[in-house]
Amino acid sequence: MARQRMLVIGGDAAGMSAASQARRMQGPEELEIVAFERGPRTSYAACGLPYLVEGLVESPDRLISRTPEEFARRDIEVHVCHEVTGIDTGARTVSVRHVSSGDERTEPWDELVIGTGARGVRPPLPGIETDGVMQLRTIEDGVELDRRIADGARNAVVVGAGYIGLEVAEALSARGLSVTVVELLDTPMAGTLDGDMAELVAAAVRDGGVDLQLGAGVEGFEPGADGSLSGVVVGGRALAADVAVLGLGVQANAELAGAAGIPVGDAGGIVVDERMRTPVDGVWAAGDCVESRHRITGESVVIALGTHANKQGRVLGTNLGGGSATFPGVIGTAITKFGRTEIGRTGVTEEHARRLGIDVVASTARSKTRAGYYPGAEPVRVKLVTRCDDGVLVGAQVVGGEGAGKRIDTLATAIWCGMRVEDLATADLSYAPPMSPVWDPVVFAAGVAARDLWR
Amino acid sequence: MARQRMLVIGGDAAGMSAASQARRMQGPEELEIVAFERGPRTSYAACGLPYLVEGLVESPDRLISRTPEEFARRDIEVHVCHEVTGIDTGARTVSVRHVSSGDERTEPWDELVIGTGARGVRPPLPGIETDGVMQLRTIEDGVELDRRIADGARNAVVVGAGYIGLEVAEALSARGLSVTVVELLDTPMAGTLDGDMAELVAAAVRDGGVDLQLGAGVEGFEPGADGSLSGVVVGGRALAADVAVLGLGVQANAELAGAAGIPVGDAGGIVVDERMRTPVDGVWAAGDCVESRHRITGESVVIALGTHANKQGRVLGTNLGGGSATFPGVIGTAITKFGRTEIGRTGVTEEHARRLGIDVVASTARSKTRAGYYPGAEPVRVKLVTRCDDGVLVGAQVVGGEGAGKRIDTLATAIWCGMRVEDLATADLSYAPPMSPVWDPVVFAAGVAARDLWR
Repeated sequence: MARQRMLVIGGDAAGMSAASQARRMQGPEELEIVAFERGPRTSYAACGLPYLVEGLVESPDRLISRTPEEFARRDIEVHVCHEVTGIDTGARTVSVRHVSSGDERTEPWDELVIGTGARGVRPPLPGIETDGVMQLRTIEDGVELDRRIADGARNAVVVGAGYIGLEVAEALSARGLSVTVVELLDTPMAGTLDGDMAELVAAAVRDGGVDLQLGAGVEGFEPGADGSLSGVVVGGRALAADVAVLGLGVQANAELAGAAGIPVGDAGGIVVDERMRTPVDGVWAAGDCVESRHRITGESVVIALGTHANKQGRVLGTNLGGGSATFPGVIGTAITKFGRTEIGRTGVTEEHARRLGIDVVASTARSKTRAGYYPGAEPVRVKLVTRCDDGVLVGAQVVGGEGAGKRIDTLATAIWCGMRVEDLATADLSYAPPMSPVWDPVVFAAGVAARDLWR
Repeated sequence: MARQRMLVIGGDAAGMSAASQARRMQGPEELEIVAFERGPRTSYAACGLPYLVEGLVESPDRLISRTPEEFARRDIEVHVCHEVTGIDTGARTVSVRHVSSGDERTEPWDELVIGTGARGVRPPLPGIETDGVMQLRTIEDGVELDRRIADGARNAVVVGAGYIGLEVAEALSARGLSVTVVELLDTPMAGTLDGDMAELVAAAVRDGGVDLQLGAGVEGFEPGADGSLSGVVVGGRALAADVAVLGLGVQANAELAGAAGIPVGDAGGIVVDERMRTPVDGVWAAGDCVESRHRITGESVVIALGTHANKQGRVLGTNLGGGSATFPGVIGTAITKFGRTEIGRTGVTEEHARRLGIDVVASTARSKTRAGYYPGAEPVRVKLVTRCDDGVLVGAQVVGGEGAGKRIDTLATAIWCGMRVEDLATADLSYAPPMSPVWDPVVFAAGVAARDLWR
């Protein structure tokens, strides 16, 4: 068989994981691998950007997983500053434009991998193009935000109280700025946490000195005399702001695929099967630009998270390279922290379950992260969502002190396996006073849920 | 039906959990509950004793979960300083002796609960009765050890490098004593950790300033001129010691049951079914004195751990009180820490699996507790033991920095559910840089194990 050509669009987690894995499966004599990346670099940790801004990461370079030179040493050819502008699935080519020179050329492929990622949502608000209204998506964004702080920015407004919004708010607050978070909905992290758990997050954010304004919409951005941002308009009143950061969630970059006739789903992501193949022969996709199947609800969802991008890329590379692997879907597991408060969630919320018509019982348990008598024991609240008809755990939320967050993995594993709360309540989980009460919060919450089921 | 009398032998976790749960099920008009405890107090956290000695727990009272007066308020009558000396299963009575007065009497029961716990192993070594050779099982032991340190103890020898031995060594070292741990076997935590993982623990113990002597047996204890301990003889040479603490594991207190004809198993514990009933009508048992079924190996084991005692007591109380519950067995999950090193284990070790003739593949993965660029990211090593014939995870060991230990719960849950490593490798576990690399150590290790299976 002739040597095949794998062409990757997008040089970040999904695309480059796919490339690396395909290379592990097949050598350069069998498979040529070439990638085109619009930006100036490959494979960086976007999730680390808030911590770069906070000053916890020594240098932007620490966020770069692998450079084009490192890929070259594995016989993966990466062209940065090259944007793919069109896909021809019939001729099996793409059009590529050099970002600075504007030169266009056509590149052939036998197997095409789309890893175009996602972009931050930018609503068409008055003044949104004002200098100082930013996102935090790229290393360049992080460096610019850091520069603005170093240059004396004092007041910041963060738009949106989701994961990124709160992480950015924490970072800016730690850097000494006066920070306001403006959220249209009535709770932070709405959609991912139920209202009762979100209240704990709101309290932590406010205790951390951030002005959290809920149920408040941004109406526009006002430039000052020098043309750069001076205020963010909320409820008809301008909040002073030297910088505003948008944290309004993301949208899959699926237009390129859509224009080429590659199916895009209702959630706005490219449609793939569990082997990461699109319905178009020879075309694959992975990462933030695709839709994944939610294992509990059956819905197709776009969840932009590095961990899925990496796993999907690896599955894709395995299959493309002649092996066999499947991506089993997601259950919406996520974790973050604000100050000392750790926040985890997985599966469906109570609100989501009710909206879908799934009959559930919700139970909340208050516990401690360690034995009560051990120094550093902190409160933790665990909410479990249990399906009534079979007693199976379908959702969990955890908010609490140090050590609370990662407990979500135990709950995610239980959900993944379809475990009943009654079984989780007697499972053999670990106990030692410095790390757990004798009834670990997870086990304790499962016991409460099992009893609530019988009510 | 006439009011029944539940008589509990042993006022600690298992017995008092059973009593409390039975009381929740039935009121005092239906069920009289009376408990006899040999010692001077009820329900204390023995696992907290090393931290009491270390000075991390404010006062011994903090380790007491519930006093006899608190039980009395729930209509549970507790007699401390009362030792049950005999059981008559035919007449349905026990003989009870007041510990100080020596007065004996007979008490009737309809339902008998044996929660006699376990005792520390005390080998018949020369000089073992010397003043200063101690165990750390009761609050009195903890208070006495604290007093000896306050009185100027300088040198300590800990006999045995298991969980208790290492926890005591850490505590004594933190209090400024010069500490030697003497272990007969070649690794610390032998039996619970494989040799390769135990080496990491040995390094942590030595880095912590403790003199860990492996493959070394204690030959005797030598009194000084005043009759109290002056040295511990190891390899013919006396190590200076003002205090010696035995950490040689425990033995079920099953003699009382055995003498009454209640079956005791090969592991030395009372035999119970999954409802916590002994084979003798009306006689129940729970906690450190019983044998539990190991779900992976099918073996009957005695595992003395407060978490099992509490769960078994609750199951027992539910059934005795007319409900229905089962204790599903154990998988040997355990966790501890030494200094900043956290140690967790669950399921079977590689060595144990091979001894049992289970065909397994063992895989070890090195990772970090957080994203590499995030401050406080520490090394963590995860060892997985996978059954060859079906790829199911049957054992796991974790040794690493802060946040490493509790990851064992995710692995324990996976083992509990019979999860295959291949499925764990693509499961949706949480990721955020302050708490996890993009490939969480658990997921990463599962991926390595899945690949090793195919070799």
